[in-house]
Amino acid sequence: MEVEQVLHMNGGSGKASYANNSLLQQKVISLTKPMREEAIASMFLRILPTRLAIADLGCSSGPNTFLVVSEVIKLVEKLCQELKHESPEYQVFMNDLPGNDFNNIFKSISCFKEKLSNEIEGGMGPCYLTGVPGSFYERIFPIRSLHFVHSSYSLQWLSQVPEGIENNKRNIYMAKTSPINILKAYYAQFQRDFSLFLKCRAEEVIEKGNMVLTFLGRRNEDPSSKECCYIWELLAQALNDMVSEGMIKEEEMETFNIPQYTPSASEVKSEVIKEGSFSINRVEISEVHWNAYNMNSNYFDSKCAFLKSLSDGGYNVTNTMRAVAEPLLVSHFGEAFIDDIFYRYRKNITEAMSKEKTEFVNVSISLTRRA
Amino acid sequence: MEVEQVLHMNGGSGKASYANNSLLQQKVISLTKPMREEAIASMFLRILPTRLAIADLGCSSGPNTFLVVSEVIKLVEKLCQELKHESPEYQVFMNDLPGNDFNNIFKSISCFKEKLSNEIEGGMGPCYLTGVPGSFYERIFPIRSLHFVHSSYSLQWLSQVPEGIENNKRNIYMAKTSPINILKAYYAQFQRDFSLFLKCRAEEVIEKGNMVLTFLGRRNEDPSSKECCYIWELLAQALNDMVSEGMIKEEEMETFNIPQYTPSASEVKSEVIKEGSFSINRVEISEVHWNAYNMNSNYFDSKCAFLKSLSDGGYNVTNTMRAVAEPLLVSHFGEAFIDDIFYRYRKNITEAMSKEKTEFVNVSISLTRRA
Repeated sequence: MEVEQVLHMNGGSGKASYANNSLLQQKVISLTKPMREEAIASMFLRILPTRLAIADLGCSSGPNTFLVVSEVIKLVEKLCQELKHESPEYQVFMNDLPGNDFNNIFKSISCFKEKLSNEIEGGMGPCYLTGVPGSFYERIFPIRSLHFVHSSYSLQWLSQVPEGIENNKRNIYMAKTSPINILKAYYAQFQRDFSLFLKCRAEEVIEKGNMVLTFLGRRNEDPSSKECCYIWELLAQALNDMVSEGMIKEEEMETFNIPQYTPSASEVKSEVIKEGSFSINRVEISEVHWNAYNMNSNYFDSKCAFLKSLSDGGYNVTNTMRAVAEPLLVSHFGEAFIDDIFYRYRKNITEAMSKEKTEFVNVSISLTRRA
Repeated sequence: MEVEQVLHMNGGSGKASYANNSLLQQKVISLTKPMREEAIASMFLRILPTRLAIADLGCSSGPNTFLVVSEVIKLVEKLCQELKHESPEYQVFMNDLPGNDFNNIFKSISCFKEKLSNEIEGGMGPCYLTGVPGSFYERIFPIRSLHFVHSSYSLQWLSQVPEGIENNKRNIYMAKTSPINILKAYYAQFQRDFSLFLKCRAEEVIEKGNMVLTFLGRRNEDPSSKECCYIWELLAQALNDMVSEGMIKEEEMETFNIPQYTPSASEVKSEVIKEGSFSINRVEISEVHWNAYNMNSNYFDSKCAFLKSLSDGGYNVTNTMRAVAEPLLVSHFGEAFIDDIFYRYRKNITEAMSKEKTEFVNVSISLTRRA
């Protein structure tokens, strides 16, 4: 499986699209707002650029795509007003893998700009938006061309399924029953990928420029800990049931593994320190309920969200996971059983949620490019 | 009709797609290669930038999309080798309206890059490609950020259908039977649009940077001359026949006009001189047969093209026009009669081609941003 060709969120704006099932990712973005604001304000006041270049890596396509950009521009305009400083030009680079639905983003740009300029009293600097297709594990921008880099819930995706994990058998991710070489191979792949990411960005971010990165991660130092692996174990259960019933071949099951690594804060920090180009300003860990529409989430900013919250939580979580994982599954198992897979996955998720605390852990880090 | 929302070439890669029906545009691009090479070489040797920023405005989506970029990079690499100068980084901006099929472009970038780097002996500088959705009648790039701007067969498209042309009746473009106010309104719209284009680019192109622009145009000073209007008259005939047969309402027909203006070389020059930011290096006029697969075109670089040349020329020309005009027609007349429209249009085109010389006229201009 070529991850770069296959990995993308469900496109379009239909029922199973990422655009319609990304409230979870939106909540994570709002949780990390204070960290971003601190980073942007300190960078902007330090550099006072006339052209501010911002990149959102793994921007996907949907209502979240412009969230961070809006927030950055609003904050910078506020700072400019306070300082009586002229607004900069904004050059915004939206990056994702080439399979991402960029057409969908581009069609909503004029709406986004209009809304934003209505929200900012006193006007804003001109904003030039571009799409940058490509893997962030390669160089995708010219040398020293970016002031601020953001990425949320993207860097847990690896550039490839780790090699040498043929003996992961009926697991599709790290699990309690995974042999030790599996855990080592996953961690090694994470280290290679994230250090390469840092090396590329070190060339692209200007001196004293900032990065704020959020990983789907874990608190526990054990990489097979339930807090990060359970959600995939429930999918593995569904697939294994289908193997037992003869719908999926055993060999197909045994060769499917998720190209993801959910790191701990110390694993993230350790790569940053080893690579050496960035200093660490702040590391934060937060949680978000699997069901983004959860009643405790204080997130009822729309009638639609409220109504969804009343519906089956398992259904919501399955949709979130489907929007993210469907292209991977289809590329490996084909289209034929895809509805069946998610039907079973939903049952497993619903049962798990009724029994225990089900939360995703987020690891966020704020970095500054050393001089 | 909001031209910005409606105007785009047929997307995807199907039978009626622009990607499969753009040999004509490709021929025009190769006709203007010497002019581009002269412009790029003189700009590059003058500036010797470490980061070379190139924009292709109206890049569309298909085999032509990367033609000019490839050509620029090959030439610059050759110059660098001759001078023993280090290759620059290439920052390439592919621009078109937001309805363009950018997804299709982005999926072929890795192929394009691989092919290009195989073709250049001794390697090439890194190339960063981005998509820029937006109308080139607005600012779409930061101030003084571009070294070279290219646009081919795009600038004849107006930002809107001219106002005040309700009395164009059964015509859909300027025609011999168009009242004088129609011709004036079309020309005024061209002047407004092109001067705005020049004003925007004057801010975006660096001092001594270059632009090479090619318009679908005309030799004759009469804007209703057959050389530029006949192709649309044949479409108008088809539509009028359908009005007579009651398939299209008269009112629908009378409110449809093509948002295009095919200028003469002197009209293009006159706007450049009036705007004042660019000096004119060279103006050229060329022709290309309506049927890009024409036997006289010496363009049989593939078996496919050769086979197509043997087929009906009217069919080829209709496909070229359909790839370009179908979205406009569908947005005004709906989907229902679209096949019928092109069936009739094809008959008219075939008949016209059997009787007379049928050529498009290209007006190309090479400009340098004044200091």
